[in-house]
Amino acid sequence: MNITILGAGNVAWHLAQAFEKAGHNVMEVYARNRKNAKKIASLLYDSDVTNSLDLRDSDATVFVLAVSDKAIEDLAKQILLPANSLLVHSSGSVPLEVLEYARKKNKDLEIGVLYPLMTFTTGKNLDINQVPFLIEGSDEKLILKIAKSLSVKCQLADSLQRQTLHAAAVFACNFTNHLLALAKELTENEEVDYNLLKPLISETLKKSLLVEHPGDVQTGPAVRHDLNAIAIHRDLLKDNDQLLSVYDKLTESIQYWHGE
Amino acid sequence: MNITILGAGNVAWHLAQAFEKAGHNVMEVYARNRKNAKKIASLLYDSDVTNSLDLRDSDATVFVLAVSDKAIEDLAKQILLPANSLLVHSSGSVPLEVLEYARKKNKDLEIGVLYPLMTFTTGKNLDINQVPFLIEGSDEKLILKIAKSLSVKCQLADSLQRQTLHAAAVFACNFTNHLLALAKELTENEEVDYNLLKPLISETLKKSLLVEHPGDVQTGPAVRHDLNAIAIHRDLLKDNDQLLSVYDKLTESIQYWHGE
Repeated sequence: MNITILGAGNVAWHLAQAFEKAGHNVMEVYARNRKNAKKIASLLYDSDVTNSLDLRDSDATVFVLAVSDKAIEDLAKQILLPANSLLVHSSGSVPLEVLEYARKKNKDLEIGVLYPLMTFTTGKNLDINQVPFLIEGSDEKLILKIAKSLSVKCQLADSLQRQTLHAAAVFACNFTNHLLALAKELTENEEVDYNLLKPLISETLKKSLLVEHPGDVQTGPAVRHDLNAIAIHRDLLKDNDQLLSVYDKLTESIQYWHGE
Repeated sequence: MNITILGAGNVAWHLAQAFEKAGHNVMEVYARNRKNAKKIASLLYDSDVTNSLDLRDSDATVFVLAVSDKAIEDLAKQILLPANSLLVHSSGSVPLEVLEYARKKNKDLEIGVLYPLMTFTTGKNLDINQVPFLIEGSDEKLILKIAKSLSVKCQLADSLQRQTLHAAAVFACNFTNHLLALAKELTENEEVDYNLLKPLISETLKKSLLVEHPGDVQTGPAVRHDLNAIAIHRDLLKDNDQLLSVYDKLTESIQYWHGE
């Protein structure tokens, strides 16, 4: 298929190359700043760069919004597309309906979502074939076909299901990464080596991912109601309100969850 | 060396076998309930089981308290040891000084801490050679020698440093595991498949462990100040006060940490 990528960030960087690897043609890369679009186009076989949202003359039939959540609505309002084309966005939280704006000017436009449940870093390759893609849209068959050309893990999900997975990913990934940052901060404050924690972190995660429910392998002072250890930790954190409040909130949540 | 293990839990299970593999003799396994001690002794070459804390006639010279934090003080008060022996505990948060109780009855007793910074599960082997051991005590040379017979990663750490690493481990491991449990709960509530998150969880952790500071790879709505996504997530969580309060606390902490 002929595909146009809109965006020049991490997701655009990965999807553009993944589409090409899958045998599609990436016709154009759009970015407000042509320079940014060029960085991605230069990695592709034969793609034009553009900063115009009037794409009515494009040879593409599939248009992929790989832009920030905030930009999706604006672009959907401004974009002009060829007849009989498909516009998808790649966001975890933005509802499908936002793309209806683009339909107002193009009644036969198909719209959809092609959400890769993954964290992407520009310049760092990963096996896209194993990335789960969550799909919805006005022509699910077509979108599923595109997704399946990229990955073996494709699945229909309505906006509520997709948003739920996105929120769950915030807990499981964004928040956990932040806790590692807080652990690092704590070790720096007392000049101990954060690296000593890494084998334990890896082992904890390995264990957690293997069991049916992570709650089954919860360990630590909170779940044991080890008041001595909790008092020692709270004393260590007493000059750092922010760390202490996170400690207390998660200790409380563990005890609540495990049936105080 | 001749070693006696006190305790019958996860740490005792691992340490007893590790000592034997390292060429030491495990003379006795103590547990209040002899049955529990037998479970561990049965895995060893030739160890007695006992439920007596009068160990004055033991042939061991090293006594390892691998019991719950709560039990350490009581055992230190009750235990009777041979002359010229060493008593260590294996806890991350209990101060060394607690073992002074045992010294009252045995002036030449050496005391110390041999803390493996790892999560152990009975029945699940792991490479103890790579486990960091934190050491302190009245005869650090001796304790370090014992630790080095078990692992290549041994390091002196005073009680404050050890407690700091223990608190950091609570953030980096116990709390992160709980966040995975909350993510799982969230997916269950909306009947989406938690397994879809696993590649993302693994990739996030891989990325976080590779960089100098986890804060450098923080992603997600909080650090982007993506108010739309945050509003969508808060709406999804509105009937679950506990999840919502954790979401809000960690969102606030991320924004505070990354300079609001």
